Amino acid sequence: MVVAYLGTGFHGFAIQQGVPTVAGALSEALEKVLRHPVKLVCAGRTDAGVHAWGQVVSFDAVIGADLERAQRSLNGMLAPRIVVRKAGWAPDGFDARCWALSRTYRYLISCSKWPDPFSAGITWHVGAPLDVRAMQAACDPLLGEHDFSSFCRVPGKPPASRVRRILAAEWSDLGRGRLRFEVQAASFCQQMVRSIVGTLVEVGLGRRKAGEMVGVLEARDRSVAGPVAPAHGLCLWRVDYPQPHWSCGAAP
Amino acid sequence: MVVAYLGTGFHGFAIQQGVPTVAGALSEALEKVLRHPVKLVCAGRTDAGVHAWGQVVSFDAVIGADLERAQRSLNGMLAPRIVVRKAGWAPDGFDARCWALSRTYRYLISCSKWPDPFSAGITWHVGAPLDVRAMQAACDPLLGEHDFSSFCRVPGKPPASRVRRILAAEWSDLGRGRLRFEVQAASFCQQMVRSIVGTLVEVGLGRRKAGEMVGVLEARDRSVAGPVAPAHGLCLWRVDYPQPHWSCGAAP
Repeated sequence: MVVAYLGTGFHGFAIQQGVPTVAGALSEALEKVLRHPVKLVCAGRTDAGVHAWGQVVSFDAVIGADLERAQRSLNGMLAPRIVVRKAGWAPDGFDARCWALSRTYRYLISCSKWPDPFSAGITWHVGAPLDVRAMQAACDPLLGEHDFSSFCRVPGKPPASRVRRILAAEWSDLGRGRLRFEVQAASFCQQMVRSIVGTLVEVGLGRRKAGEMVGVLEARDRSVAGPVAPAHGLCLWRVDYPQPHWSCGAAP
Repeated sequence: MVVAYLGTGFHGFAIQQGVPTVAGALSEALEKVLRHPVKLVCAGRTDAGVHAWGQVVSFDAVIGADLERAQRSLNGMLAPRIVVRKAGWAPDGFDARCWALSRTYRYLISCSKWPDPFSAGITWHVGAPLDVRAMQAACDPLLGEHDFSSFCRVPGKPPASRVRRILAAEWSDLGRGRLRFEVQAASFCQQMVRSIVGTLVEVGLGRRKAGEMVGVLEARDRSVAGPVAPAHGLCLWRVDYPQPHWSCGAAP
């Protein structure tokens, strides 16, 4: 299924006991509809407060289950906070996480002096002018394969590899003080997009030079990068799969 | 002041005891900042759940009060649900309601099969295709001065005149199943925009013919018009005043 959700009020995607999570709400509703236990696999485990437009989840269902009816029932229970945009049968053995070729995230920023009540829930209100050219120049060196330790959350347990390959990273000026950052990678480590955005905004504000980014990357040290940008500006936009059928895209 | 707000969770603009209202929140914050009692007058008393981008409120303040500082303090207390977009001194005797030449409302509709979690709070999800040409043809006869009793809330007390003058009424196709209705009049009676939208959507769905609208208008009978469209799709967009300084507009 391709699932959109407003992350506000959810403690992220992954199930945690005693707190509302997207996977918790979704699997509870799915089990009511399908009448059997369901174990969800998702393409990207979004953090607390992070939104999704094109999250992909996979699970086992009884052959012959009426997916169109299931989608209607799920949306009847969960919409508009969680919306199942598409539901379909996947190839045997499909796994939303392992089969994904890349994830694309979008981050929205407002430079206007005052926030806009209608988009405040999905936009980081920086409230000051940002130098978009400098931010683009600063993120260009991140393209390609690097050790992104400087931009990854320091984990409790011994860390896995933080080598990731960024396929695309681009800022767009949407007009009226609104900026959008879109970044695509095969995969991301935790808080990576938000750490990159937080650091690039420091460049945009003139607090850092664009040329510093190579040094930040090479330091492989979380403390040299900027702060983590707020969760509510981030959205898992799209997940791409080998089969075009499973390229869970969205019109721009 | 020009004020934007997300009407969700507010019992309308006007103060009511014991429930959250926009005027209640705004005047409480204003009295803290200005340190004297404040009586707010607004250009349009929006109903429960209705939003505003360009609501205008007037009140008496001590001459010499620092309005820029007051705006910052207010937004610090109220944003992002309520945002003071502009604050300035008005001519002596200014009254946001009486001096207004016209009010412009916008109504958002989504025809997509499933709602969009990110705009669901400010959009009526009709969830079916609508014939926009028929809706435009149906609303054209409403232009000009008419008795709008068929589209006004039946009041408890003996009714005042329901003669109103509609200056403009236009549907726009925003793409991806999103429609916007914009209507401008010197003033509106209660629930007038939502009753018009509810009736026009019946035309768009093919349940009524566009040609019926003249008869609905001439009936001067609330029961012949369609249902009242939901509050959360409606937004007080702009209020126009004689002085260009007080034309509280917004870029499209």
